[in-house]
Amino acid sequence: MTHSQARERTAAELARVGIVLTPAERESIEIADFGLGDFERAGLAIVVYVNTERVCAKELVLLPRQTCPEHRHPPVDGEPGKEETFRCRDGSVHLHVEGNEEIVLQPGDQFTIPPDTLHWFEAGDAGAIMSEFSTRSTDENDVFTDPRITR
Amino acid sequence: MTHSQARERTAAELARVGIVLTPAERESIEIADFGLGDFERAGLAIVVYVNTERVCAKELVLLPRQTCPEHRHPPVDGEPGKEETFRCRDGSVHLHVEGNEEIVLQPGDQFTIPPDTLHWFEAGDAGAIMSEFSTRSTDENDVFTDPRITR
Repeated sequence: MTHSQARERTAAELARVGIVLTPAERESIEIADFGLGDFERAGLAIVVYVNTERVCAKELVLLPRQTCPEHRHPPVDGEPGKEETFRCRDGSVHLHVEGNEEIVLQPGDQFTIPPDTLHWFEAGDAGAIMSEFSTRSTDENDVFTDPRITR
Repeated sequence: MTHSQARERTAAELARVGIVLTPAERESIEIADFGLGDFERAGLAIVVYVNTERVCAKELVLLPRQTCPEHRHPPVDGEPGKEETFRCRDGSVHLHVEGNEEIVLQPGDQFTIPPDTLHWFEAGDAGAIMSEFSTRSTDENDVFTDPRITR
C-alpha cells in the first residue's frame, strides 16, 4: 500500500462513519510508519484537527490488526508529559497501558492515559477509528521502546 | 420539550450521524437552558466525553436556530481562560466572535476561540452538531453578557 493509497483508504473510512474532512485535511492525512518501513503492520493514519500550545485533537485510523508501537510521553520543559484520551468510534482497539490488564475499546468506549506512561495498541480484525483528545502533541519528544523507531 | 425529551432527541441526533454513546453517557446528557427557562430558543445539549485538569472534549447538539448566549472564559487562578475549538459535524453554526465578522461553520469547518474572548453562536435551520476540543471546562467561571444568566 503506497502512502497515497493509505491516505485514500483513510478518507474513505472516515467518510463511511460520517466524519467530514475538508479537502485540505484529506490531503494532509499523515501516514506514520515510525521509520520501520512496514506500515501495514506497524503504523497508523492520523488527521490532526487542532494542535495549539494547550490542546490537541486528532482522528486515528488503523487497518485490521495494525499496531502503534509502545511509547510514552515524558515531561518537557518542566511541563508534565502529554495526556491522551482515546475514544473508539468504529471497529475495536486492544489497548495496552503500563500497570493495567489489556483494555478492549469498542465504539463509545474510551480510556485516558496519564503522562509518561508506557502504552501501545492494536486494532481488532475490522480495523479501528479512534478520536484522540490531548494536551499539545510534539512527536519529537515521544520515547519509543523499540530503539529502531524514529518520529 | 421536557428535559427528558431533549435528551432523547439529542441521543437520536448523535446516533443519526454515527456517534456512539454508552448508556451512561446517554443518561447524563446535559440539557442547558442558562437559567432562562426557554430551552428551545436559548440552550444546547451537551455530552462531556472527558474533562480533566488539562483537557476537555464534548459534543454540542443544537435545535434549529437554537442559540448559546454571549459569554467569555476569563483567566482563573493565574491560568489563561479556557481555549475552545468548535468543529461542525452536522448542520451548520453561525458563530459570532469578538473582533470577527460572522463565521459560518459547515460540516468539516472549525474555529478556535482564544481565552477571554466574547462569543455566541446560533444553529442554522437544520440544527447543528459540533465537537468541542478545549482546556478544562469550569462552567462556574464563565462570564455571560446577559446578567439574568446563571450556570
